[in-house]
Amino acid sequence: MDKFGEFLEYLKENDIKKAVITRKENITYFLERYPPNFSILIFDSNHDKVTLQVSKLDFEMSKDYKNKNLDIELYENFENTFKGCIGLEDTLPIKFLKFVEKYTIISKKIDEMREIKSKAEIQNIKTAAKISDEAIEFGTNYAFENDCVTENQVAAEIEYFMKEKGSIRPSFDTIAISNKKTRLPHGMPSKDIVKNILLMDIGALYEGYCSDITRTVILNENIQKYSEVYDVVKSAKLEAEKNLKAGISVKELDLVARDHMGEFKEYFIHSLGHGVGVEVHESPTISSKIKEDIILKEGMVITIEPGIYTDDFGVRIEDLYLVKKNGFEKLSNAKILKY
Amino acid sequence: MDKFGEFLEYLKENDIKKAVITRKENITYFLERYPPNFSILIFDSNHDKVTLQVSKLDFEMSKDYKNKNLDIELYENFENTFKGCIGLEDTLPIKFLKFVEKYTIISKKIDEMREIKSKAEIQNIKTAAKISDEAIEFGTNYAFENDCVTENQVAAEIEYFMKEKGSIRPSFDTIAISNKKTRLPHGMPSKDIVKNILLMDIGALYEGYCSDITRTVILNENIQKYSEVYDVVKSAKLEAEKNLKAGISVKELDLVARDHMGEFKEYFIHSLGHGVGVEVHESPTISSKIKEDIILKEGMVITIEPGIYTDDFGVRIEDLYLVKKNGFEKLSNAKILKY
Repeated sequence: MDKFGEFLEYLKENDIKKAVITRKENITYFLERYPPNFSILIFDSNHDKVTLQVSKLDFEMSKDYKNKNLDIELYENFENTFKGCIGLEDTLPIKFLKFVEKYTIISKKIDEMREIKSKAEIQNIKTAAKISDEAIEFGTNYAFENDCVTENQVAAEIEYFMKEKGSIRPSFDTIAISNKKTRLPHGMPSKDIVKNILLMDIGALYEGYCSDITRTVILNENIQKYSEVYDVVKSAKLEAEKNLKAGISVKELDLVARDHMGEFKEYFIHSLGHGVGVEVHESPTISSKIKEDIILKEGMVITIEPGIYTDDFGVRIEDLYLVKKNGFEKLSNAKILKY
Repeated sequence: MDKFGEFLEYLKENDIKKAVITRKENITYFLERYPPNFSILIFDSNHDKVTLQVSKLDFEMSKDYKNKNLDIELYENFENTFKGCIGLEDTLPIKFLKFVEKYTIISKKIDEMREIKSKAEIQNIKTAAKISDEAIEFGTNYAFENDCVTENQVAAEIEYFMKEKGSIRPSFDTIAISNKKTRLPHGMPSKDIVKNILLMDIGALYEGYCSDITRTVILNENIQKYSEVYDVVKSAKLEAEKNLKAGISVKELDLVARDHMGEFKEYFIHSLGHGVGVEVHESPTISSKIKEDIILKEGMVITIEPGIYTDDFGVRIEDLYLVKKNGFEKLSNAKILKY
C-alpha cells in the first residue's frame, strides 16, 4: 500500500476524520520530494482525500506536485486549515491549539512509518550520500594539499562542493575541526588553522533527504597517541558492522561496539548511531541507554559512528547503512584514510 | 535595563515564577550570541536567576557562556526542566505539555523585546550584512565573467564566499535564479544555465543573527521589458526610503511603495518587507494587509524589497535598514547594478 493509503487507513481505524501535517520533514516524507516553502498537508479520511495547501507565492511552482492522489489548493487561514481537525503532530507549536477543540497525536504512527524507507526514499538518500562521499574526499585532499588552511575554509570548500552537486543545503551545520577542538563532539569550525588532526562530520540534503558521514584524518604522523585511538575507533566500527543485520537490537549493537573499545570505552560519550531520512537524526536511536529496546528491521537507514574523545583530541568515524535481512548495504562509501 | 533583567521583571509582574525557553532563536536573542547545539534557557523569577541547560556533549564548550548573570548546568530530563514552569513559548511543541500543569504564553513579550535591537545585536547584523554584501557582488561578477554557469554554481559560489567569511550557514535557502524562473518569488536554483536575467536573494548568519539582501541584474541588455520593470522596482524602493523613519506605520510605508508602481502594482504580490534579527522573518511585517497596523520605532531592523513578477520574469531589489528617529541607516550596501 502507498503511504497516503496506509496513513488514511490508520486514521479511519482510529476514527480520526481529519489530520493536519505542518512539519516540513513529515510532508517531505509523504511526498518523497522537497515540498514548497510554505506547505501544509491535510488528510481527510472521510473522503479518502489528501490535499497540499500552499501559499500564493508558491502556487505556480506547486502545480507539478499534483497527481491522482494529491490535490493542491491555496492556503487561506489557519481557522480553515484546522477546521474539524483532530489529528495533530506532537511537534505542532502550542499556539495552534486555539484552532482545535480536542485532538489526538498522530506522530507515533508517522515516526514508525518513517523508520522503514521506500525505494524512492532510499534512492534520494543514496544520492545525498554520494554527494557527501565525494565532498569529504575533496575536503580531505584540500586540507592535505594546501598549507595554512582554516577550519572555515575546509567547511566552505565542502559545502561549495555539495551545493554545486545539487545538495539543497548541508543536512546539519558542517563540522570541520582540527587539533584540540576535535575533542568536542559538536565543535564548530573557526578561523583556526588546520593542523595535527582533522575531523569532518558532514551531510548533504537531496530532495529533502539527508546523508551523514564522518571522517577523521591524522595530518601529523609523529603524534603516536592519535594512531592508537584511531585504530580502536575503526576496529569498534568494524565490530558493529559484523553484527549489523535485521533482528539485532539497538542496545546489543551499541554494546558490541562499546565493549570492543576496552579501556577506551569511558571516552565514548555518545550513542553508537541514529536513524537517517528526512531528518538527520530520527528513529531508531542506536543506544544502550534508551528505555525501550528496538529491533532493527529491513529497510531502516542508520549510522554507525563510534568516537573517542580524550582531553587532547577526538576521533570519530561514521558511515551510513541500509539494514538488510542478512546484513546491510553501505550507503556512504568515501575512503577511510588514517593519514 | 539588560534583557535578563527586563524579562525577569515582566515575569514577576505577571506572577510567572518560572519560564522555559527552548526556541534556539529566542535563546540567541537573550545571549546575543549563537548558543550551543542543545540549549534550554530557564528564567527563575523567584530567585532572579537565569540558567542555560546544555547537554553533556556540549558542556565543555559551554563554559565560556557563563557570566555573573548566567549559570550553566547539565540538562537531565524534561521532567526536571519543566518542573514548576508556567511560562511557555507559543512555538513549544505540544508534546511537552505533559510536563506542565497550567501555562501562560510569554512569546508576545519576547517578540516585542526582539523588535528593538541592542547595540550588540546591531553589530552582529552589520557583520552578517557585510558578508552578504560582498557575497552578492562576488556572485554578480562570477555570473558576468563566466560563460555557461548554472544557477546551482552561482548559489554555491555565494555560499562558499559567505562561509569562508564566517557565516555559520545561509540565513535561508540561497535563491539564485535566472530567466523565466525569476517570476517565482521562492524559486530554487537548479542545473539551468544562467541567462538573460539573474535574481539573487541571499543572507548570512553571524553569531545567530541574519542578513537579507536581493539584487537582480540584467544580463541581456537587448530585452527592453526587463529594463522598464527594473526601473519601476528601483524607483518604488527609493520612494519607500524617502518615507522610512520612526513614526511611520507599516501599512503606510507598504502603500507608498505599492502605489508608486502605478499599473505594475498588481504584479507586486508580496509584502514590502519584514523585520530581521535572530530570524530572517520576524516582527514587524511591513504590509498593508495585516490586521493591526504597527508604527516603526527607532532600533527596528527591517527590509524593503519591492518586486514585480510578470508571466515571463521577475525583478526584486531588497536592502536592510536600521530605523532611526529621523530616517534610517542602511545596513546592506552592495552596489545596485542594472546591467
